[in-house]
Amino acid sequence: MSNQIAMTKYIGAFVDELTKSGVKQVVVSPGSRSTPIAMLMADHPDIEVMMHVDERSAAFFALGLAKATNKTVAILCTSGTAAANYLPAVVESFYARVPLLVITADRPHELRDIGAAQTIDQVNLFGNHVKWFQDMPLPEESREMQKFVRTVCSRAVQTTIQAPYGPVHLNFPLREPLVPIMDDRSKFEGMDTPIVRTEKYHVTLSDESFNRLAVNLPKNGIIVCGPMDEYNANFNEAIVKLAQNINYPIIADPLSQLRSGNHNKQFIIDSYNAFLKNEQVRNKLKPEVIIRFGSMPVSKSLMFYLKEHADVPQYIVDGGQGWRDPVSTAYEMIYCNEQIFCEKLTMLTEDRSKLNSSWIEQWLQLNKLVKDVIVQIDADKLNEGRLIYHLQNLVPEQSSIMVGNSMPIRDVDDFFHSNYKSIKLYGNRGVNGIDGLVSTALGISAAVENTYLIVGDLSFYHDMNGLLAAKMHDLNLTILLINNNGGGIFSMLQQAKHPTYFELLFGTPTDLQFEHAAKLYGGKYYRVETWQQYVKAMETVQNEQGLKIIEVFTNRHENAKIRQKLWENVSREIENRLGEVLR
Amino acid sequence: MSNQIAMTKYIGAFVDELTKSGVKQVVVSPGSRSTPIAMLMADHPDIEVMMHVDERSAAFFALGLAKATNKTVAILCTSGTAAANYLPAVVESFYARVPLLVITADRPHELRDIGAAQTIDQVNLFGNHVKWFQDMPLPEESREMQKFVRTVCSRAVQTTIQAPYGPVHLNFPLREPLVPIMDDRSKFEGMDTPIVRTEKYHVTLSDESFNRLAVNLPKNGIIVCGPMDEYNANFNEAIVKLAQNINYPIIADPLSQLRSGNHNKQFIIDSYNAFLKNEQVRNKLKPEVIIRFGSMPVSKSLMFYLKEHADVPQYIVDGGQGWRDPVSTAYEMIYCNEQIFCEKLTMLTEDRSKLNSSWIEQWLQLNKLVKDVIVQIDADKLNEGRLIYHLQNLVPEQSSIMVGNSMPIRDVDDFFHSNYKSIKLYGNRGVNGIDGLVSTALGISAAVENTYLIVGDLSFYHDMNGLLAAKMHDLNLTILLINNNGGGIFSMLQQAKHPTYFELLFGTPTDLQFEHAAKLYGGKYYRVETWQQYVKAMETVQNEQGLKIIEVFTNRHENAKIRQKLWENVSREIENRLGEVLR
Repeated sequence: MSNQIAMTKYIGAFVDELTKSGVKQVVVSPGSRSTPIAMLMADHPDIEVMMHVDERSAAFFALGLAKATNKTVAILCTSGTAAANYLPAVVESFYARVPLLVITADRPHELRDIGAAQTIDQVNLFGNHVKWFQDMPLPEESREMQKFVRTVCSRAVQTTIQAPYGPVHLNFPLREPLVPIMDDRSKFEGMDTPIVRTEKYHVTLSDESFNRLAVNLPKNGIIVCGPMDEYNANFNEAIVKLAQNINYPIIADPLSQLRSGNHNKQFIIDSYNAFLKNEQVRNKLKPEVIIRFGSMPVSKSLMFYLKEHADVPQYIVDGGQGWRDPVSTAYEMIYCNEQIFCEKLTMLTEDRSKLNSSWIEQWLQLNKLVKDVIVQIDADKLNEGRLIYHLQNLVPEQSSIMVGNSMPIRDVDDFFHSNYKSIKLYGNRGVNGIDGLVSTALGISAAVENTYLIVGDLSFYHDMNGLLAAKMHDLNLTILLINNNGGGIFSMLQQAKHPTYFELLFGTPTDLQFEHAAKLYGGKYYRVETWQQYVKAMETVQNEQGLKIIEVFTNRHENAKIRQKLWENVSREIENRLGEVLR
Repeated sequence: MSNQIAMTKYIGAFVDELTKSGVKQVVVSPGSRSTPIAMLMADHPDIEVMMHVDERSAAFFALGLAKATNKTVAILCTSGTAAANYLPAVVESFYARVPLLVITADRPHELRDIGAAQTIDQVNLFGNHVKWFQDMPLPEESREMQKFVRTVCSRAVQTTIQAPYGPVHLNFPLREPLVPIMDDRSKFEGMDTPIVRTEKYHVTLSDESFNRLAVNLPKNGIIVCGPMDEYNANFNEAIVKLAQNINYPIIADPLSQLRSGNHNKQFIIDSYNAFLKNEQVRNKLKPEVIIRFGSMPVSKSLMFYLKEHADVPQYIVDGGQGWRDPVSTAYEMIYCNEQIFCEKLTMLTEDRSKLNSSWIEQWLQLNKLVKDVIVQIDADKLNEGRLIYHLQNLVPEQSSIMVGNSMPIRDVDDFFHSNYKSIKLYGNRGVNGIDGLVSTALGISAAVENTYLIVGDLSFYHDMNGLLAAKMHDLNLTILLINNNGGGIFSMLQQAKHPTYFELLFGTPTDLQFEHAAKLYGGKYYRVETWQQYVKAMETVQNEQGLKIIEVFTNRHENAKIRQKLWENVSREIENRLGEVLR
């Protein structure tokens, strides 16, 4: 009994402090050892408990929820492989900088490493992939330990939401009996001493540094904006203002969140992946400076461009103090909050917006030139590029679109162009896995209206289990399932030249009829084989609730051909007009 | 090109050495970075490559294959979260002692921790849950490095299959271009110097130790045999002979592999979980010594019995030198190969088999008494216990049955009684997860005929993705899916007394209609609601190929009641006859 009292007070204090630290949503997986934490969470008036049986999907679900809300989401599971199933999402949240609080129940110390059931080594289970780990002490009733557990809780949550955002892992050893005293009225009672908080802080530069950068800013520079850690409309305004002030184009990755929204799009370049394929263009467009924000954009030709101009000063602005230099072209790491950086630099630089700039004109013309060719994919046929090209017209205002890795994100890069709709694009680009995408999208859908997921068939299959959340929690999500029966991206790689092993090792056709998956999880299903069917389905789903799966059948080989032809057309057009555009 | 030559020779040497070290089967997941290893494996005449898209399931599939073959199975995946998905199965294989060789591709060192795509910290990714880890050097063409990579390969494989068996992780950084030179004819060419091997070795005791144990062996002892790391018919013979020689009963966990097979069953006790529920029985049956083999049996009442007799000398025999003492009742750790131990002790002890032993008689009578009551579950109704009770008659000779955790293993403990059929029972009892069970069973089915899986609905859901392997590799597996719509085991725990949160947190009904899952994966589906349907389905599947799902609908609450009533009957019967049996 005294054990139970101690546990109730200790875990009660922890759970209560969670809510005071700003955690309101917890994704819980069923288990025995975690019972006291789960029951007290369910009992707390300010916590919403969402159940998810598969821990791997549960963690990705929480990741999506955290992305969409910009708030820390907690996950809770029992000891053993349950916790091990969290690893993929923990890794993604670490590299994608998403605030996740991982809470695992564990056997008490005396039951560790002696062959007890469901007992693994949970100390530092996620290795270097969490920002902070604490192996908690066993519950004690004392005031000191209640203050301790509240302090750890506050510190843990606040660690997840200081830049760089990321996961924190707390491991709670618990002894039997595993049921708390639910009618203890004081279990969530606060303390009369305050619990330490950490103000939200930012990194910034000294005035001298800012001045030095501003003074030396050359005429012909570019801004590159990759995937941003979080959606921040103020940053969007700030970077656009900076670009206009200094006449630099903004190379905007789809996950930069700069292609949609109501900020000015004048200097947003979104078709660079196409025109930077051309070597002459890359050479001619040599910049004098590159200012890069966010993580590395998905575009391969942009990567070549950056590599070829490795001699050009490249500033990598990162408020999360990382080392985002995968092509080894950085010149200086600028550890400064991105919004502050843009605002300061705008203030410190003279307004060049009224000056003529053939530099920016070249970028804008090339961008337009590509778009004029891309319009021509509006042929009769259904193809992956065209699906994405028209997507912005087929989703309502205030939509969120989660984009799968491999082909979807590349197609979005090429075909999702800038617009003034309020559309947020999400992706799991921390480590670009094909896992957990369905759950991440469902997590987003739990926070916002009009959520879409664009995903290939392999990725969809990988996280099909995630669909259970849609059913259990009545979520609204439209999945645009692009089924080319296997690993489409590999058709673009060198391996494709070795047909003997290609289908076995890379094509991996699953031949699954996903209509059955829709039925299993109570989703509506739309089979799409023509353009008309696609448009109709996209319109229909706007009036439907729940899970909606639009399966679009495309052909890997045909798509590769259509892409190739399109880029040949773009290339020809560029060749023809090169002299005229690049003066 | 020179890079490609070096890579081809280096990876070619590694792949060739795999086969020479005894690895013939590799479960590969598609990916780009792992291309050179995958292609060379596919090209090697002595390697069977089995593809599996979901790495979590792939690793469990390999685990099952390794369990069934008693041979090292390799798994291969690309960098990033792909590798992270391996963790649950790696953890299980570590604690269950299954030989698994984990091969991951990684970015080269210069691309680590600089924000490159699909790059995580793979060094020691699985922490303490592998026996050995090596971060391999980049491919080099030199003879020395070819010898090195072959030596590491040989060492790694041999480490997985020395007691205790377990996983080893090799991490291969690879540079682009990622395609080997497939027409290099010398790529699998062996070396003229031998590669070091390690003979299979065992631990054993000194003659003095054996003598001391043999001389001091009291009259009234028991042998407890929990889940064994591997199936070994010679051990089965040896332990049975020892028991008969010294007149000790053998408490045989279902995964001890002692309940089936053609060894003598005279002293095999299989209904102890029932009669040891009785406190008086536990008291009266105080042993003078306990000799324990394998990991801890699943029986809860046996655990009470062991705890209550913590003052009795308990020898834990473990050829894998672990610390299998979860209830802290060990007296001495005997690090000795189990078969050798039994054979030696039999040799060194006098033959007591002709002596009268009221001790052994008591155990046998109690065992029989329980069985006589259990026969009575043969009522009209379909219930979980009865399904299992008749299972041995409904599967063919030479069957393998994979048993799920939570309720199935407990039901098998209570209701799967000893028999002379050749039936192997498997379970994932390393850490008792509800994950990966479908894949483990499919891995077993890839090695042997007549494989069955008994699994609850939550576990089945958790690893539904695993079913793809059945479809892709034309495997034969019968799944006995016991659907009580949620977490049946929790009904037996304390939590059940808190109805407010019970269904939310523990019941977790998914309401899934698994018939759709059968359709999705091309399986045959049998809906079972009556006893007759069950028997008929079990007979039918014997003549069917492929994936067969027999879904048995039971009721959590009803089952809990039936179980309770049955144990009350057993208990009453024991009370009635206690005086007579326990003289």
